[in-house]
Amino acid sequence: MQKSSADPDIVIPGFKFVGIPAGIKKSGGKDLALIFSEVPAVTAALFTTNKIKAAPVQLSIERLAAAKRCQAIIINSGNANACTGISGLETARGIMAKTAQELDIPSRLVCISSTGKIGAPLPQEKINRALPTLVRNLSSTSLGQAASAILTTDTFAKISSKKIRIGQKRGIIAGIAKGAGMIRPDMATMLCFLTTDISINPKTLDSALREAVNRSFNRITIDNEMSTNDTVMMMANGNLGNIPLTKSSAAYNKFRRALNEITYDLASMIAEDGEGATKLIEVVVKGAKTESDAGKVASSIANSMLVKTAVYGCDPNWGRIMAAAGYSGAELDEQKIDIYINKFKLVSKGSGTGKDSAASKSLSDKKILITVDLNIGRESSKSLTCDLTEGYIKINAHYST
Amino acid sequence: MQKSSADPDIVIPGFKFVGIPAGIKKSGGKDLALIFSEVPAVTAALFTTNKIKAAPVQLSIERLAAAKRCQAIIINSGNANACTGISGLETARGIMAKTAQELDIPSRLVCISSTGKIGAPLPQEKINRALPTLVRNLSSTSLGQAASAILTTDTFAKISSKKIRIGQKRGIIAGIAKGAGMIRPDMATMLCFLTTDISINPKTLDSALREAVNRSFNRITIDNEMSTNDTVMMMANGNLGNIPLTKSSAAYNKFRRALNEITYDLASMIAEDGEGATKLIEVVVKGAKTESDAGKVASSIANSMLVKTAVYGCDPNWGRIMAAAGYSGAELDEQKIDIYINKFKLVSKGSGTGKDSAASKSLSDKKILITVDLNIGRESSKSLTCDLTEGYIKINAHYST
Repeated sequence: MQKSSADPDIVIPGFKFVGIPAGIKKSGGKDLALIFSEVPAVTAALFTTNKIKAAPVQLSIERLAAAKRCQAIIINSGNANACTGISGLETARGIMAKTAQELDIPSRLVCISSTGKIGAPLPQEKINRALPTLVRNLSSTSLGQAASAILTTDTFAKISSKKIRIGQKRGIIAGIAKGAGMIRPDMATMLCFLTTDISINPKTLDSALREAVNRSFNRITIDNEMSTNDTVMMMANGNLGNIPLTKSSAAYNKFRRALNEITYDLASMIAEDGEGATKLIEVVVKGAKTESDAGKVASSIANSMLVKTAVYGCDPNWGRIMAAAGYSGAELDEQKIDIYINKFKLVSKGSGTGKDSAASKSLSDKKILITVDLNIGRESSKSLTCDLTEGYIKINAHYST
Repeated sequence: MQKSSADPDIVIPGFKFVGIPAGIKKSGGKDLALIFSEVPAVTAALFTTNKIKAAPVQLSIERLAAAKRCQAIIINSGNANACTGISGLETARGIMAKTAQELDIPSRLVCISSTGKIGAPLPQEKINRALPTLVRNLSSTSLGQAASAILTTDTFAKISSKKIRIGQKRGIIAGIAKGAGMIRPDMATMLCFLTTDISINPKTLDSALREAVNRSFNRITIDNEMSTNDTVMMMANGNLGNIPLTKSSAAYNKFRRALNEITYDLASMIAEDGEGATKLIEVVVKGAKTESDAGKVASSIANSMLVKTAVYGCDPNWGRIMAAAGYSGAELDEQKIDIYINKFKLVSKGSGTGKDSAASKSLSDKKILITVDLNIGRESSKSLTCDLTEGYIKINAHYST
C-alpha cells in the first residue's frame, strides 16, 4: 500500500533507486534498498542521540564526518544490526565494501542504514548475494520501490516531494521515510532519506536539514521510545547546475520552506501510521511564555497514554490534557488555560464548559486537533502523535522480526 | 476483593475508620472514607508535584503547613475535585467544615483527599447527606472498609501493617493505598494513608516518610502519568505512650525499616494492580557510576511501552531493554552491559547469549525480574511496574467515572 503526496515514479535527476526482497524479512517482503547518485553528492545527516548506537549509525557518522559527501546509501529493513558488537561493525563494513565494488565507486562514498530487530546478527551473505541484482535494477523511476523496502511495521510507504524554481530552472526535493513504532522526539526508529538535484553549499544544507528535522521528526511521538538506529540523510547532487545555494541566496528561503514542508508531511505520515493507530493527533500549544515551554506542554500531552487512549475511545476527557500540561514542567496558570478539541472549546480559564458531548462526536474523525492556549505569553509549538489502541499492544507483544 | 499482607480488621489503637457508598460512583460502590484519631495526631504528608493541583490537595497543604497536626481525613473516590476552580475549593471547604461539625472537632484539624474523574463538580450534597451515617459507623476494626472506599479502577484493596517493639511496648504502623492508573515516579494518582499509635517527633516523622516515599511510591511507574491528586499522609497519634521518637532514639531505625517495608509492600501492590496488568515487573539496575544514573536506567526501562508489551507477550526482547537504557541519559558503555530476565543471562558484555527461549518460558510467571548490570560502578536502584496489555487500553479508552 502506498499513501503519499508524491508520485512514487517521480524522477530526481541524477539519482537512481531500487528496492527488492533479499530474504532478511521472514515475510519475504522487500527489505533491501539502494539510493545512488551518478556523482558524489553533498550530504548532511542527523542520527539518534541514544547512547547505544547501531553499527550502521556508527559507521555512517564516521564516514560523513570525514567526507560530507556520499554517492550511495545501502539500506536494509528486518534487522537493525544493533547490539551486535565488533562482528556487527565488520558485517556492516563488508556490506559497504561490496556495495562500492558492485557500483564501482570508492567505498568511502557509501553510507549504510539498517532498521528492524535489535541484537540478531545481520545476514551478510543474503545481502551480498542480492547486491548484484540490486545494482542491476537501479532506475530513475524507482523511488517508490526504495520507499517500500525500508519499512518494518509501517502499513504504507511514505513519499513526499516538491519542485521549486531556482532562477530559470526547476529543481526538485524528494523524501522517503519509515516510522511506525519506537518514535519519540529526537527521532526514534525512523529513517528518512532525502534527495535533491539542487546544488547547495554543505554547511547550508546541514543547517537547513537541522531546522527541518527540529520542526518535524523531533515533534512526533508514538510511544516515547528512541531507537538505536534513527537516521535522517539528505543528498544534494547538484545535477541542476545552479550556483550552489548559501544562506544569502535569493532562492534559499524557498528551499528551506520546501524542505520544511516535505519533512513535516513525512512526519505526519509517520504519526498517522503509528503502530495500531486509528487517528492522527496534532497538539498545538499557544500563549506560552517561551517556545521551550510550549514544546514541553505539547510533548507532554502527545506522550500521555491517558490522552491517547481517550482519543481512541472518543472520550473528550480534558482533565487528562490538563494533568499532562501540569506535569510538563512548563510555567502555567491553571486559571488561564483554554482547551479545545477540534473546534469545541472544552475548557475556559481552567474550568469545563460542558461541551463534552459535541466534542465527543468530533473525536470519531481521523484527524484530531487538540489546542491548548496557556494565555500567559506569545510563544507556540506543536507535536504530532496518534491514538493508543489494542493494535499497538498486539503488534508489540509479539513483534520479533 | 482484598489482597493484602495485613488483616483488614487490624486495630491501630486510638484510630477509627469507616468506608461507605455515598452515591458518588455510578457503580454504587463504596466511595467515602473517614480516618479519625481520638486525639489530634502529629501528621506528615507529601503531595503531587503536578502544577495543576486538585482543590483537596491545595487545602490539605494549606492546613498542614499551618498545623503539622490533624485529627481526621475525609476521602472520596469517584471524583477528583480537580480543575474545578473557585467553586471546587468552596465545595472542599464546605465538606471539611461539615466533617468537623459531625465529629465535633475544630475544622482546622480536618484534611481532605479526593480521587477519580477530573473536571466534574464534586457532589457536595451527596457527601453532606452521607456524613452523619459515616461518622456513626466509625469503628476501630474498619480499616478494610476505608481501604475499599478509596479505590477507583483498582481491582483489590491494598493494606499493609507491621508491629514493632518500642522498649517494653508494641506499637503498630498500618497503611492503605490506592493506585491503578496514572502512576509514575513522583507519585501519580495514588493515595496512601498511614496511621500509627507510636509517638514520634513531627520533624522525624516528616523525614522518615520522605525517605519511605522516595524508595517506594517514587519508584513505581504504570504509564508515566502524574496526577493532580497524589497524596501520602501519615498520622501518629501517640496512643502508645512512648517517649516521642527522634532520629537519635534507639527504636528509630526499627520504625524507619518498618515504614519502608510497608510503603514498598503497598507500592508493589499498586504496580501489580496496574490497569490491565497481568504481571508485576521489578527492574533492578546495578553497577552504575551513581545512584541517580541507576535510577534513570531503571525508570527508563520500567517506562518503556515496548519492554512492557514484550513482557506481556513473553518475548525476551532484550534489544528493547538495551535501547531504553541507551536513551535514559545515564552514563554507560554498551560493551560492558549484562542483562538478565529472571535468572537467565540474555546479554553478556553487550551481546546476546542466545538463551532467549529459556527466558521466554519464564516470562509466563506472574512476577518478572529484569536485572541490568552496567558494570562500570557500584551504585544501584530499582523500579516497579507492570506489563502493558489490551486491558489498559480498554479501561482508559472508556473510563469516565
